[in-house]
Amino acid sequence: MYSVNVNGTVPFNNKATHCVGTGRMDLALHKEYLDQLKLVQDEIGFSFIRGHGLFSKDMAIFRTYRDGDVVKDEYNFTYLDMVMDSYLSMNIRPILELGFMPKDLASGEQTVFYWKGNVTPPADYDRWANLVKATLNHLMDRYGRDDVINWPIEVWNEPNLPVFWKDADMEEYFKLYEVTVKAVKETDSEFKVGGPAICGVDDIRWLKGFLDMVSDRKLPLDFVSRHHYTSYNPNPSGHYGYIELHEPQDAFRWLERSRDIVDSYPEFKDKEIFITEFNTSYIPNATIHDTTLNAAYVAHMLSRLGDKHESYSYWTFGDIFEEWGVPFTPFHGGFGLVADGCIPKPTFWTFAFYSRLTGRGIMKNDDGVLTRRDDGSIAGVLQNPDFHGEKKSKTVEIELDGLADGEYFLLSEIVNDRFGNPLKTWHEMGEPASLNDGQKTLLRKIATPGSETSNITVTGGRATLKFGLEPNEVRYVNLLPVKRTNDRGYDYERTISQVAVPEKEE
Amino acid sequence: MYSVNVNGTVPFNNKATHCVGTGRMDLALHKEYLDQLKLVQDEIGFSFIRGHGLFSKDMAIFRTYRDGDVVKDEYNFTYLDMVMDSYLSMNIRPILELGFMPKDLASGEQTVFYWKGNVTPPADYDRWANLVKATLNHLMDRYGRDDVINWPIEVWNEPNLPVFWKDADMEEYFKLYEVTVKAVKETDSEFKVGGPAICGVDDIRWLKGFLDMVSDRKLPLDFVSRHHYTSYNPNPSGHYGYIELHEPQDAFRWLERSRDIVDSYPEFKDKEIFITEFNTSYIPNATIHDTTLNAAYVAHMLSRLGDKHESYSYWTFGDIFEEWGVPFTPFHGGFGLVADGCIPKPTFWTFAFYSRLTGRGIMKNDDGVLTRRDDGSIAGVLQNPDFHGEKKSKTVEIELDGLADGEYFLLSEIVNDRFGNPLKTWHEMGEPASLNDGQKTLLRKIATPGSETSNITVTGGRATLKFGLEPNEVRYVNLLPVKRTNDRGYDYERTISQVAVPEKEE
Amino acid sequence: MYSVNVNGTVPFNNKATHCVGTGRMDLALHKEYLDQLKLVQDEIGFSFIRGHGLFSKDMAIFRTYRDGDVVKDEYNFTYLDMVMDSYLSMNIRPILELGFMPKDLASGEQTVFYWKGNVTPPADYDRWANLVKATLNHLMDRYGRDDVINWPIEVWNEPNLPVFWKDADMEEYFKLYEVTVKAVKETDSEFKVGGPAICGVDDIRWLKGFLDMVSDRKLPLDFVSRHHYTSYNPNPSGHYGYIELHEPQDAFRWLERSRDIVDSYPEFKDKEIFITEFNTSYIPNATIHDTTLNAAYVAHMLSRLGDKHESYSYWTFGDIFEEWGVPFTPFHGGFGLVADGCIPKPTFWTFAFYSRLTGRGIMKNDDGVLTRRDDGSIAGVLQNPDFHGEKKSKTVEIELDGLADGEYFLLSEIVNDRFGNPLKTWHEMGEPASLNDGQKTLLRKIATPGSETSNITVTGGRATLKFGLEPNEVRYVNLLPVKRTNDRGYDYERTISQVAVPEKEE
Amino acid sequence: MYSVNVNGTVPFNNKATHCVGTGRMDLALHKEYLDQLKLVQDEIGFSFIRGHGLFSKDMAIFRTYRDGDVVKDEYNFTYLDMVMDSYLSMNIRPILELGFMPKDLASGEQTVFYWKGNVTPPADYDRWANLVKATLNHLMDRYGRDDVINWPIEVWNEPNLPVFWKDADMEEYFKLYEVTVKAVKETDSEFKVGGPAICGVDDIRWLKGFLDMVSDRKLPLDFVSRHHYTSYNPNPSGHYGYIELHEPQDAFRWLERSRDIVDSYPEFKDKEIFITEFNTSYIPNATIHDTTLNAAYVAHMLSRLGDKHESYSYWTFGDIFEEWGVPFTPFHGGFGLVADGCIPKPTFWTFAFYSRLTGRGIMKNDDGVLTRRDDGSIAGVLQNPDFHGEKKSKTVEIELDGLADGEYFLLSEIVNDRFGNPLKTWHEMGEPASLNDGQKTLLRKIATPGSETSNITVTGGRATLKFGLEPNEVRYVNLLPVKRTNDRGYDYERTISQVAVPEKEE
Repeated sequence: MYSVNVNGTVPFNNKATHCVGTGRMDLALHKEYLDQLKLVQDEIGFSFIRGHGLFSKDMAIFRTYRDGDVVKDEYNFTYLDMVMDSYLSMNIRPILELGFMPKDLASGEQTVFYWKGNVTPPADYDRWANLVKATLNHLMDRYGRDDVINWPIEVWNEPNLPVFWKDADMEEYFKLYEVTVKAVKETDSEFKVGGPAICGVDDIRWLKGFLDMVSDRKLPLDFVSRHHYTSYNPNPSGHYGYIELHEPQDAFRWLERSRDIVDSYPEFKDKEIFITEFNTSYIPNATIHDTTLNAAYVAHMLSRLGDKHESYSYWTFGDIFEEWGVPFTPFHGGFGLVADGCIPKPTFWTFAFYSRLTGRGIMKNDDGVLTRRDDGSIAGVLQNPDFHGEKKSKTVEIELDGLADGEYFLLSEIVNDRFGNPLKTWHEMGEPASLNDGQKTLLRKIATPGSETSNITVTGGRATLKFGLEPNEVRYVNLLPVKRTNDRGYDYERTISQVAVPEKEE
Repeated sequence: MYSVNVNGTVPFNNKATHCVGTGRMDLALHKEYLDQLKLVQDEIGFSFIRGHGLFSKDMAIFRTYRDGDVVKDEYNFTYLDMVMDSYLSMNIRPILELGFMPKDLASGEQTVFYWKGNVTPPADYDRWANLVKATLNHLMDRYGRDDVINWPIEVWNEPNLPVFWKDADMEEYFKLYEVTVKAVKETDSEFKVGGPAICGVDDIRWLKGFLDMVSDRKLPLDFVSRHHYTSYNPNPSGHYGYIELHEPQDAFRWLERSRDIVDSYPEFKDKEIFITEFNTSYIPNATIHDTTLNAAYVAHMLSRLGDKHESYSYWTFGDIFEEWGVPFTPFHGGFGLVADGCIPKPTFWTFAFYSRLTGRGIMKNDDGVLTRRDDGSIAGVLQNPDFHGEKKSKTVEIELDGLADGEYFLLSEIVNDRFGNPLKTWHEMGEPASLNDGQKTLLRKIATPGSETSNITVTGGRATLKFGLEPNEVRYVNLLPVKRTNDRGYDYERTISQVAVPEKEE
Repeated sequence: MYSVNVNGTVPFNNKATHCVGTGRMDLALHKEYLDQLKLVQDEIGFSFIRGHGLFSKDMAIFRTYRDGDVVKDEYNFTYLDMVMDSYLSMNIRPILELGFMPKDLASGEQTVFYWKGNVTPPADYDRWANLVKATLNHLMDRYGRDDVINWPIEVWNEPNLPVFWKDADMEEYFKLYEVTVKAVKETDSEFKVGGPAICGVDDIRWLKGFLDMVSDRKLPLDFVSRHHYTSYNPNPSGHYGYIELHEPQDAFRWLERSRDIVDSYPEFKDKEIFITEFNTSYIPNATIHDTTLNAAYVAHMLSRLGDKHESYSYWTFGDIFEEWGVPFTPFHGGFGLVADGCIPKPTFWTFAFYSRLTGRGIMKNDDGVLTRRDDGSIAGVLQNPDFHGEKKSKTVEIELDGLADGEYFLLSEIVNDRFGNPLKTWHEMGEPASLNDGQKTLLRKIATPGSETSNITVTGGRATLKFGLEPNEVRYVNLLPVKRTNDRGYDYERTISQVAVPEKEE
Repeated sequence: MYSVNVNGTVPFNNKATHCVGTGRMDLALHKEYLDQLKLVQDEIGFSFIRGHGLFSKDMAIFRTYRDGDVVKDEYNFTYLDMVMDSYLSMNIRPILELGFMPKDLASGEQTVFYWKGNVTPPADYDRWANLVKATLNHLMDRYGRDDVINWPIEVWNEPNLPVFWKDADMEEYFKLYEVTVKAVKETDSEFKVGGPAICGVDDIRWLKGFLDMVSDRKLPLDFVSRHHYTSYNPNPSGHYGYIELHEPQDAFRWLERSRDIVDSYPEFKDKEIFITEFNTSYIPNATIHDTTLNAAYVAHMLSRLGDKHESYSYWTFGDIFEEWGVPFTPFHGGFGLVADGCIPKPTFWTFAFYSRLTGRGIMKNDDGVLTRRDDGSIAGVLQNPDFHGEKKSKTVEIELDGLADGEYFLLSEIVNDRFGNPLKTWHEMGEPASLNDGQKTLLRKIATPGSETSNITVTGGRATLKFGLEPNEVRYVNLLPVKRTNDRGYDYERTISQVAVPEKEE
């Protein structure tokens, strides 16, 4: 039983909709990608989107040509415009991750992923700086300085991994950061720039090294960025990977370390930290991503991630994503909130529910969060993550105090094994690789949360809400006062009590 | 326990989607009407639509003008074209009920309804015949003879009630029928015409009188039409009416009588009967229309209505309907399958479920119907109408025999007090007269049936299905064979068994 | 030749998009009405819409019922909500004309129009005041006070005509005004109220009488309203009317008189005047409404109407309008900017062109208007109304001074007898009453303005634009600087000079 | 002056809408591609679409994996399904060009194009055959045999060029053909297969060799395929190429040669020939593609291409096409009928106009084609290609005989330098690389053909039509009988003769 004063305040900084991750940028040219993003924006509404590949081959932004004996650079913004037009039409804006290296500007041939992003430093840092400036200037020309100036800029991705940055060469990254941040600020000093976009490998050394470097060279740094995945190394099997999750408290502890390191520098104390990627598993074929456990685990994370971070970007919004190739089935453990065929997964609803948690925090604990909105209604998300496979239901009781007396309407929306869980039904259908229209329609219907509604009465300012949560359930709750009207002659109880009677005279 | 041989046949003539009723024709100019009809057509797909008012004032088809000393008739098909264009764009066609009387052609001033349909005979039968011909010819010109020739034509509405036909004058109606049927057949002899469109008052005398007259005068008659409502007179209260239903068997018995009378004429034996209106209550403010009991009662009716009738037209598809004025709230007991705001009511789903019952009947009893479709799958609708307010659940067990062995996918879609029941939630919201966008969205979501899915295994050709039906539940069931594929490495059980473990080395 | 300094200013107060007229309010429930309004809003974008019938029968807002021996009033906002929801979804808001009289509140039976609007005073002024208050309170509840408070309110329509107000009883109107304005201001003192909504008959006496009354009784008056039609009495022929127009200068002179009268009262000097209706002819079947002459005449009016008026509302946006019944053909001389079938008429483009005249006036004369927009471009509308049937083309030359030197892009959009003139093509098609889909598509295509584009060069700050205008042409012109880029290797002249050559070796 | 008997017949086999070309298949995942295709299908409506890349990397259909020591093949139809779903939703179906070689199945590393299609023979012909069979079987499973069986299959693309087929090795191609055609027919013997898909280089030797081989080996051959481009080698400049066209008669002569060769084999006489690609220039940056000359030249070709060919597929429908990389501007000389931004080019209308030429040919000459449709109307396309840059207008007079007497409606739709020519306006705008929304909207408006309408009268069965064609004009003409109605009182001449008169008494 939790006792909650609805006029009180508990710390809850909900940034769940600040940013979301995406597959490489040119996939935003795809219709299915855009359809999935539209679904996400309609129901959740993220402010920003971040992914790789801005300068990679398929965006075709940079290339060289020969003019007599001279090799010259040229820029092509045809596809960049298409992508940005689409983003803005859905009211989402990019966090501009600058990378990877255009082939014609690269110092080497090392690539990452199925789609072969070049991860070597620039062959010529001046031309890299020119590319950055040209791109930003083009965006400001087309979309207006006032808008573009607020699109955060991040320098590269996970340079602490040799797979993403040749040899994980720290000094080379520092050079890249220095050249880039200067190019950005020369373009317009109001742009916000951040780094080092590291993941959890050797992260303490990298973070300290980076902050020392920025401090020493007196470089701008508007936010610190890092990634956060909460699973052990996967066990592969065929096209798929299976994982063990970290205990949540372990995972939060590592984040604390980053926060502490940043705060240990007087000049960086309270500096905004952006978790520019997070998820349970870091592989795009981790079957857990499609499950209700994932949804419940992420709900638990979202309740606390805002305590120390200004942004945490779930990796990724949708399943059009080609890092390890094209998936074979719709439920392939992709990172996305949405499966191919525009089918929301359970974790989609975790974000949808969190997006409704506006207002002031009034309860936060391991079972969930409540907020009081500006209009006086109460909203909340509760979860019962089955971390250890115990399959136990749980009852959550909340005693609210401080409400106006009267009648209230209580709505629950429910995701658990029975509701909002298309994976189960897809399995029952025989795990079809190619969904036909009927199957897609059914799975979308199945993927909708269940609903429960009822009335409760508040007297003496108090009411007790009691929710039974099945294993891996995530539940949105909403309590709002009823302004009851009654049309002349309408009687609900009489309405639902009508019956049939045997033949008689009239 | 029902034993069902899936390779057998039981008589089941599913005409649930042949025709549906509508408010007066010019309401089909309204956007909300068309939005509701689109919802109905998308999910159910009726072939025909029938309602009043073709020749009433608001369609503006007929009027007279003075040319010097002569009064002349003129026809205006502007609105008729708009309505028919809309109908055809949704793949629905009219059953043309000829009526009521244009003011300028009427012999009197008596009107019916809030919208004042004139119910007096024509002042001049020749000009009436001209009007009928002109209208049919215009429709054939615009939409093509091949199409229009298949739109059934019905002569007037409920002439056995004085409220619908001045003095319920039988001889006058016979004259109208004679003039009209001749005008129609002169226009094109392939048109199908029917009557007498009577309701249950004094119906035996009317039906016999009509058939005698048709027989005596050797008039064409392509179908017999009548109406069918299954409630006692309502008890009014304010804007609303409350009713007692007839026991279903009583209701069916009256229909039998009509069938028997028709069949008693050798020349009319097996003549098609169209029930051109049916519903539980015959008032447009009967609160029962919005309930789950209505849905379950109608499901029970639909299982048998096709036994003796070629058409039975639920009165009506939607709640844009003004016979007794404009309703004050969205849940006002209107006839419609859809409430204003495009919110499906429980009975909407009864029809949606029946529309999926294609193929051959293999089970029919008081608990429901099963069919076997051409693709081999089994579909069914089960219901548990709580006729007497006993609030009892029921278990329906069906043993299927004759199936191919193997794995099957079983889907249920469920409407009962908890699922697909927006009335309850609207009540809990405080019975708001004006729904805002958020309320509409929530009620539409609430109005969706619940779903359950599972696998079953057939061995030895047999499987037993067992369904628990809550009171007033209507349940669609669908059983189809699974062609299981398994992508390399995918393991569903392993997928849903992943857990978190405490910190460890990797 | 006009000399225009683009950095200068001439008085031009463009209120062309402030308000537009509409058929009676419940026609806004119709799909075709809404489709036409959407077209208008997409291309023109009016802020307000004003028409009759808020309290007339079909809106069903007011009615009485008997409770025992007492007759009570009740309000029904079902249709009002639907209409306002639609308006707001298209970003247009009502000017609330309070009228006509609900049948159950009327003191008499006199009606106006095919649709029978009751034009008698209230039987009970207190209940009228209650109706006004209830309606405004409902709107504020549903749409928010901050929005609704800005919807202007007008008391009745043309009380100076006995057809619109029983006996054109001036004292009774003053009573209505007094009761109404007090009811409105009691509801919320920030509402803006106006009257007397008179037309040109006996208008001087009415206007003075009204202003005297308001002054004497110290009533609120936020704007003065009147109507303005610029044709002589029509000559009827069958369904149609033919007219003679007033010379424009005569028409403007009458308006001056109203302005002078208002300004002659110290307390009303510079009080805003709303022309709440204007058009050429005041009948809904005046064939002139569909012509290019109408478009050119209105263009001429629009250039000057803002000189002394804050609002002038073209009567009406579309042809769903039933005052004299339902039209027989799409081109029936309706008031609308859009013909049935969503076909823009020439005058539609006059408004579309004027809606683009943002910024500061830099030229205004009998041939048209030019403005300089905030972005530095020049926009204009020119017209050549053939007032006297002389069928003369005209050349308009404009010498611009004060421009930055360089290359410019000049766009013309043209409506005249050849372009944007669907009436001519409809006539050539045989004047079909019922348009099929192909005819509608073709007429919509035909209804589009012609376009001409070219480059001009400014040197020494000067350029001369020269436009040849055919009779009854209305032409939108737009001049904007060119920022020429040239992609590597692209040569337009070479592109359009490629040819075929006889077979040769390669 | 042409004399045309409208009841006669001239040979005209209009296959203009049989097939159209496309960029590589996975580009059909792109939203802009699909938007362009929708525009094309809405206005033109091709039956088939053919392009490269079915088996290339980005479709991801084929790959190998290691299972212990064994390398196995696996197939992935995720993207293929998405593409085919999109095609079928727009009622277009693929001609399945089998190629290029999946990387994991290739015998070498040679690639073609920016997107690196592998052009080497299979490393293992059995696995190639398996791939072909698996793909066809998958398509039949998903889309139904009855549909898929009618999708023509073509073996490879331009094997006579070493750039498309390693070393242009003829014997290796024959082997590929043999293996493939056998695999296809084993899958289902009703599939239609064709080749050799050659272009004009060394084509005679290739065609004869191929036919000899098919004959010798007694292989199936359902159609012969070749390509047809009608320009000399381009002159490159920066990103663009400029060309000289072949004289049309020269171009047709080469086609005759292919026809003659095929017919010279008794067993192949009258065998269907598919021109699976044609256009003026064969480079994707030929500036001529965007011009009116291209439109007029192609119109001239379309009048005759059906004489000897069952299919001729314009290369390509749209400008999402990456063979030489991503274009820098919307008007870059791409092959497409539609420029990026969904702007139709002049040649788009050539096809749109030809798509309306249904019925029986009644005139065909160098100035154009006329047909008589089943409904009796006359349709035609006339053109005035300015082959030699002479900029001469031309008058085409046609005397029709055999018409029913009476009034007719004559419609022209016109594309020339002034109408339907967005390239000119884009140039005037400064050749912007990035179009903003306003520019796109304007260019789409500009890209619409001009219209002219009039009435003509036929007496004695005769009428003379006279059309003035500007240089490079393509004109659609349509003559249809008028069924004139006249609503009571409507007088068009009086309508357009109304005037203004000075103030007078009324």
